[in-house]
Amino acid sequence: MKKKTIKQTEPKLIIKAIGGYGVIGRNMTVVQYGDESVILDMGLYLNRYISFQESGEEMTSEALIDDEALPNDRKFFAKHGNTVKAIVIGHAHLDHTGGIRFLASKYKCPIVASPYTSRIIEKMSYDDHWQLKNKLIPLSINSSYKLSKNITVELVGVTHSTLQTAITVIHTPAGSVVYTLDYKLDNNPPFGPKTNMQRLRQLGKEHVIVLLPDCTRSDQEGHTFSEKVARSMLKDVLLGLQDKNHAIVATTFASNINRLHSIIDMGNLIGREVVFLGRSFKRWISAAEELGLINFSNQAQILSNGREYRRFLKEANANRGKYLMIMTGNQGEPNAMLVRVAKGDTAFEFMPGDNIIFSCHVIPTPMIQANRRKLEELLRRKKTRIFKDVHASGHAKKEDHRDMIKMLRPEHIIPAHGTTPKHAALVDLASEIGYKLGENIHLLQEGQELEIK
Amino acid sequence: MKKKTIKQTEPKLIIKAIGGYGVIGRNMTVVQYGDESVILDMGLYLNRYISFQESGEEMTSEALIDDEALPNDRKFFAKHGNTVKAIVIGHAHLDHTGGIRFLASKYKCPIVASPYTSRIIEKMSYDDHWQLKNKLIPLSINSSYKLSKNITVELVGVTHSTLQTAITVIHTPAGSVVYTLDYKLDNNPPFGPKTNMQRLRQLGKEHVIVLLPDCTRSDQEGHTFSEKVARSMLKDVLLGLQDKNHAIVATTFASNINRLHSIIDMGNLIGREVVFLGRSFKRWISAAEELGLINFSNQAQILSNGREYRRFLKEANANRGKYLMIMTGNQGEPNAMLVRVAKGDTAFEFMPGDNIIFSCHVIPTPMIQANRRKLEELLRRKKTRIFKDVHASGHAKKEDHRDMIKMLRPEHIIPAHGTTPKHAALVDLASEIGYKLGENIHLLQEGQELEIK
Amino acid sequence: MKKKTIKQTEPKLIIKAIGGYGVIGRNMTVVQYGDESVILDMGLYLNRYISFQESGEEMTSEALIDDEALPNDRKFFAKHGNTVKAIVIGHAHLDHTGGIRFLASKYKCPIVASPYTSRIIEKMSYDDHWQLKNKLIPLSINSSYKLSKNITVELVGVTHSTLQTAITVIHTPAGSVVYTLDYKLDNNPPFGPKTNMQRLRQLGKEHVIVLLPDCTRSDQEGHTFSEKVARSMLKDVLLGLQDKNHAIVATTFASNINRLHSIIDMGNLIGREVVFLGRSFKRWISAAEELGLINFSNQAQILSNGREYRRFLKEANANRGKYLMIMTGNQGEPNAMLVRVAKGDTAFEFMPGDNIIFSCHVIPTPMIQANRRKLEELLRRKKTRIFKDVHASGHAKKEDHRDMIKMLRPEHIIPAHGTTPKHAALVDLASEIGYKLGENIHLLQEGQELEIK
Amino acid sequence: MKKKTIKQTEPKLIIKAIGGYGVIGRNMTVVQYGDESVILDMGLYLNRYISFQESGEEMTSEALIDDEALPNDRKFFAKHGNTVKAIVIGHAHLDHTGGIRFLASKYKCPIVASPYTSRIIEKMSYDDHWQLKNKLIPLSINSSYKLSKNITVELVGVTHSTLQTAITVIHTPAGSVVYTLDYKLDNNPPFGPKTNMQRLRQLGKEHVIVLLPDCTRSDQEGHTFSEKVARSMLKDVLLGLQDKNHAIVATTFASNINRLHSIIDMGNLIGREVVFLGRSFKRWISAAEELGLINFSNQAQILSNGREYRRFLKEANANRGKYLMIMTGNQGEPNAMLVRVAKGDTAFEFMPGDNIIFSCHVIPTPMIQANRRKLEELLRRKKTRIFKDVHASGHAKKEDHRDMIKMLRPEHIIPAHGTTPKHAALVDLASEIGYKLGENIHLLQEGQELEIK
Repeated sequence: MKKKTIKQTEPKLIIKAIGGYGVIGRNMTVVQYGDESVILDMGLYLNRYISFQESGEEMTSEALIDDEALPNDRKFFAKHGNTVKAIVIGHAHLDHTGGIRFLASKYKCPIVASPYTSRIIEKMSYDDHWQLKNKLIPLSINSSYKLSKNITVELVGVTHSTLQTAITVIHTPAGSVVYTLDYKLDNNPPFGPKTNMQRLRQLGKEHVIVLLPDCTRSDQEGHTFSEKVARSMLKDVLLGLQDKNHAIVATTFASNINRLHSIIDMGNLIGREVVFLGRSFKRWISAAEELGLINFSNQAQILSNGREYRRFLKEANANRGKYLMIMTGNQGEPNAMLVRVAKGDTAFEFMPGDNIIFSCHVIPTPMIQANRRKLEELLRRKKTRIFKDVHASGHAKKEDHRDMIKMLRPEHIIPAHGTTPKHAALVDLASEIGYKLGENIHLLQEGQELEIK
Repeated sequence: MKKKTIKQTEPKLIIKAIGGYGVIGRNMTVVQYGDESVILDMGLYLNRYISFQESGEEMTSEALIDDEALPNDRKFFAKHGNTVKAIVIGHAHLDHTGGIRFLASKYKCPIVASPYTSRIIEKMSYDDHWQLKNKLIPLSINSSYKLSKNITVELVGVTHSTLQTAITVIHTPAGSVVYTLDYKLDNNPPFGPKTNMQRLRQLGKEHVIVLLPDCTRSDQEGHTFSEKVARSMLKDVLLGLQDKNHAIVATTFASNINRLHSIIDMGNLIGREVVFLGRSFKRWISAAEELGLINFSNQAQILSNGREYRRFLKEANANRGKYLMIMTGNQGEPNAMLVRVAKGDTAFEFMPGDNIIFSCHVIPTPMIQANRRKLEELLRRKKTRIFKDVHASGHAKKEDHRDMIKMLRPEHIIPAHGTTPKHAALVDLASEIGYKLGENIHLLQEGQELEIK
Repeated sequence: MKKKTIKQTEPKLIIKAIGGYGVIGRNMTVVQYGDESVILDMGLYLNRYISFQESGEEMTSEALIDDEALPNDRKFFAKHGNTVKAIVIGHAHLDHTGGIRFLASKYKCPIVASPYTSRIIEKMSYDDHWQLKNKLIPLSINSSYKLSKNITVELVGVTHSTLQTAITVIHTPAGSVVYTLDYKLDNNPPFGPKTNMQRLRQLGKEHVIVLLPDCTRSDQEGHTFSEKVARSMLKDVLLGLQDKNHAIVATTFASNINRLHSIIDMGNLIGREVVFLGRSFKRWISAAEELGLINFSNQAQILSNGREYRRFLKEANANRGKYLMIMTGNQGEPNAMLVRVAKGDTAFEFMPGDNIIFSCHVIPTPMIQANRRKLEELLRRKKTRIFKDVHASGHAKKEDHRDMIKMLRPEHIIPAHGTTPKHAALVDLASEIGYKLGENIHLLQEGQELEIK
Repeated sequence: MKKKTIKQTEPKLIIKAIGGYGVIGRNMTVVQYGDESVILDMGLYLNRYISFQESGEEMTSEALIDDEALPNDRKFFAKHGNTVKAIVIGHAHLDHTGGIRFLASKYKCPIVASPYTSRIIEKMSYDDHWQLKNKLIPLSINSSYKLSKNITVELVGVTHSTLQTAITVIHTPAGSVVYTLDYKLDNNPPFGPKTNMQRLRQLGKEHVIVLLPDCTRSDQEGHTFSEKVARSMLKDVLLGLQDKNHAIVATTFASNINRLHSIIDMGNLIGREVVFLGRSFKRWISAAEELGLINFSNQAQILSNGREYRRFLKEANANRGKYLMIMTGNQGEPNAMLVRVAKGDTAFEFMPGDNIIFSCHVIPTPMIQANRRKLEELLRRKKTRIFKDVHASGHAKKEDHRDMIKMLRPEHIIPAHGTTPKHAALVDLASEIGYKLGENIHLLQEGQELEIK
């Protein structure tokens, strides 16, 4: 589609939609300029990946591509694999990084990512026993790296639901390609840096030739609330728990370090010892601590193996008013800590009146919704008190997208990371601003590409 | 967009999206072949039209276009107005015919439509006091009419929620353009002819170059139930009303002659006199009677003016068990009969236990939903019994579209009559079948066009 | 509650709410007259029962009562167990019969039920290897059985979603107690007898002292559509499937014999061999055949063991256009046939374009909704065509309850079989008719009783 | 129901449900002790009141009672009107005060209310031209007033969505009756006093014989977020509006003084002049200023008549980036300021990109939902940016009710202010805690009463 022969000698700029176009997950996009190219993100489609794992089949990249758990980069690799100058990763979530394990090594190029993202990738490799063959180049947020004479990558700091998330900018002689997967515009984050609005406005004054926006919530009206709002909700719920003899369990995404920060602060405020339970906390917290971004270890226990869990849960069962436990399992993942406790598989037993705070929303895919419903049913039977949706999303909504488009003033927009109807919602928004479908806003399906003229 | 220079001498086939792309309503599409063109439908956007009427502004075509109540044909008319060979109307609903009053006369060409549709257009002109300047050519369902050497129009009979609805086929040397606004695939209609499947399959074997599908329900799973199902629901509800001393009022779309037919039959079955109340019934019923398609007048009273209404409603108030009343107002239209009765503005007063059957769904636009909610609130306060959604839709759903695409095997698909997310849903369906966005399924916005190569 | 000392010598009439009050399931009610009593239904709460089974604990009646999977009859049995003259079962669904296995034997009294319900109870006992110790008295629909001088039980035929469902009437000198668990008012059933309206009206003219209504859908407006409507939907979907080379699979509740009847008829109409796959069909069909109510065996294959399944599924995989398969698994039950096929665990593999017809709704309990979502996800990945909600419910809605109350004219109403908000909805309806809460409409919780004065 | 003859000479304690039982609105409850009684609240049912106003009928108390816009106190007044020692009003919202105008004067007794509530009642009387004949006794929050030897009224401060809201406690020799209409448990209000938890716990240690809880949100899980959360949302949205040249309009309930306070603060933060437009602001703000509770006038313009509106709106239209306008009309009320502006009836015209912040939810009654939808439709057509639900509710949810019940430890609970299903939800919650329906939690319908033994 849309390939057009032009008789210039100038190199062509082509955007290739490999994964995440028509689906939420398995993100991978290629920016090709002349005979060089850059890969943006290399993610998993978790909904399929989980089913695949359950099936017990052998986990090869070929099988995972066939099952649509990975982006299908076969055609691209065959023709252009050797042109790739770098794989740039915007942030550390699995729908952006989870494909590295299976796909990266065949590309003979480095991986460029923020220091925190880089550290998480290293830990994935170590924890899950696979070898990272690509060179890893940690690039500071708000700085640039020259990949070749023509191509420079820049990471612009942006707010999202994990640390050191970047808007990836690929500078080429034809203009810059701005890739905003994933982001929110948090004007008021309680921890860490704000979005680098100044730089975004500057980019808008220079020449943004293509914007690739994160469309996961493009169909929702309004503005995504700040992490500060989530903190204010958490504070409200936790300080309101008056009974000193009941357990308090909070659960959230392990990668949401700022949220964990808020929960620790609230634990201190209400005089409870904060204890992390569940395998995945270790990875996300220690990566941040190693980089000096946080120091949770001096304010909380971070348990990380079965023996520690067992000893602690027995103790907590006898002194349930003493702790604020933070557990994995916010999506009802079958083997996560909260689910095991709710099932009665541990030494800690929920009592009527114990408090469970879900500081998250439910990811709207069928398998996950099913798991979560089962967890809630178990908790209700224990007569626990359930507080849900104590949360603010990490993804931009309609009015945030409008702000971003107005700042960047891109020549072209290609909606990314979303289902086709979500892409359609972004088309409608862009049309309000003055873009026209097929002229300067373009819909791509996986496997398609667009040459920008 | 997508205009490409080609060096052939062969005439070009171009599809122009004038109205109904990104919105449900104001349908108008142009098929241009060489230096000739055909207009398909000329509709109103009722949601805007109603607000416009309420505003009290003078109703000119220019003001209605500015207010987006009419398709914006200005650019097309200026450049190509004199190339139009015919305006072809698929069926008589206002979102397909309502623009004729304001836009048709400037095109110096005939209007081609089925006999019933033609008759309704004449009545609109007569009733609403405007002059139809275009020649009206009634074309029988399942027949063709040659517009020029290169262009022939064919009306293929299809099922929908009013009589003599056609799939419009524009035959050109480049292949046929098939326009399915609006349709359902009813395999089992209780009255009237079935869809001409044989002809559709035949068209698929010849050469359909473009399909323009009705996307109003393309985002809904499954199959749209037959009118027979609606009849069976109606029968079930009406025969179950046991109290012989309460009023029975049914309300539905006046254009849905088959539904009215079923309601009359049920009235006969339960031994009640059937009486139509409300201005718009007259138009739709008399058009059908004049063509010999039905004979309601010998089975029901069709009241048509204030004096008749007043006399009858007084009588019905005293003998409420005697009649099955069919009233306008199924969408809560402020001046419709059912609303006036519910407000207490007539001699007929609802009593607790009177029965109201809504043989319709609620059109999902804000103004209409608001009106309907107000009506239901009035009815509930009268303690009437309310039976809602005794209805089957007239619009194809996902599996019906799949059947249609498989029968017609079009080279290209351009979703029509729908919001952008509804068009996106059709893209997803077509992709399942093997189409690719931008290659052989194309999204257009109002004002855009596509040259088919 | 509400026990009041009265100084008469007349025997007291007391209604005891044992199970199904505040919950949908585990139905059990006691009617006590003087020193005699009758138990109405003895059901399971399936949501809990399924979780219990998954837990792997030993299945004793005590454990099941503790886990709230069974009605808690301990207090009643201890004080009044020896006064029970009969256990009367209204129909054969597990939420009305599933407790017999665990609770019935300690009551030294017969079980009275319609011939079909009786036969199903026998088969449950045989299939699941437990001994039915109570004498089983099959009582024809629309006949009576004298339990004692003062108490006569009558089964009045009513429509529901399985065969020979009865409204149970307990006649006492104080008036009759009418128990309508479960029913719909189907004026037009395609098979089998209608509701015995004449008898219900007659009962209303005699003296109904208490009505215990089925409240599972009391909070829904309107009338529950006839089984005829479901048949008409099925016919519409099945006759519309045009591709002769794809599989057709229907799934519904095995107990819904009339629905199965319709599916067989449609299979014949479209010229496909009808084959039943899944263990539970055998029980419900053979019971009906043994009583001469149906003869499916001469119109369809009813497979009943693994060897038959394997042989047939291999054959069907090669000739997918030849059969209409009816499978268990409509609620996504993990080991049911449709789920196993969808998972790829059998020789039959779904192909894109195969058709799955869900002739059912989804039971709104979390575990079941989760299972069903997982099944649909599997089916969508196979690119099958899914037709959902081709169904009419078996439970009365608001307007049906109004009809029932008006026919029976009970002195008192006690909502049964429902959550507390559903009972509240019946209170609101009864109030519209003129009842007053606490005077003649009473809410009971499990474990409570009401003396009727 | 529930009237029981007892042979004591001790005075009886009787709770009479006059209004708000089975409906959200028209609140009125009577506490009768011996031959004395107290009326709690005297409210309107706004949904009906608005329709009544539209009907144009003469507004008499009798007509309003017949139309169910007022509580029906006829029977009570006839038998016990002369026993009333006081009308106690919990807070100033119309569903608690709006009946005073029509019903209070026939009771020859004072009205007791907090100073702010009292001031609002005076202003209602003055503004709407009716005479308040009862003596008004302003009683400070957290203080008591002796009505008779046996009866003392106490106002305990509680958080809600207007100022000086009280939990009303009626102390009698039989124990105290605690009436919590309306409240939330805000642990963290940004302005004004917290709930007097200490006093509530003290009451629980003394003897609460009856609790009458506000059930408007009893069917919702979790905890109602603090006003601090709403403030944090507002701050987030307002500080994020980057375009300095567009209008900002906030709309909320005029009675929510704390919310208005937050909006003013945010206006100051972003450097815009704050201007109030709409008649009802004047009443609620000036009452608070007269009592020295706030001083808005020195931080904002509070316009209050047509001339001021016209002058300002013309000015604002020319300088739209200068102001933060706070308008009435958050529920789409037909004549409110925001609606008039959106319709284009004023000198101020919305431009694409202007910002509308709805700091409220939509009240779920049909007439109001209809109005609000119409307003949003108008705003969308102007291409304004809409931010909805920037709000925290003022009504307690399930976990707040649990806290309240545990603090007060009432002997009996009678759900108030809610539909029957909402009362049912409170029954379920109380049952979890150990209450039993009919024993110590009781459902009343309007017109019923319960003697507490």
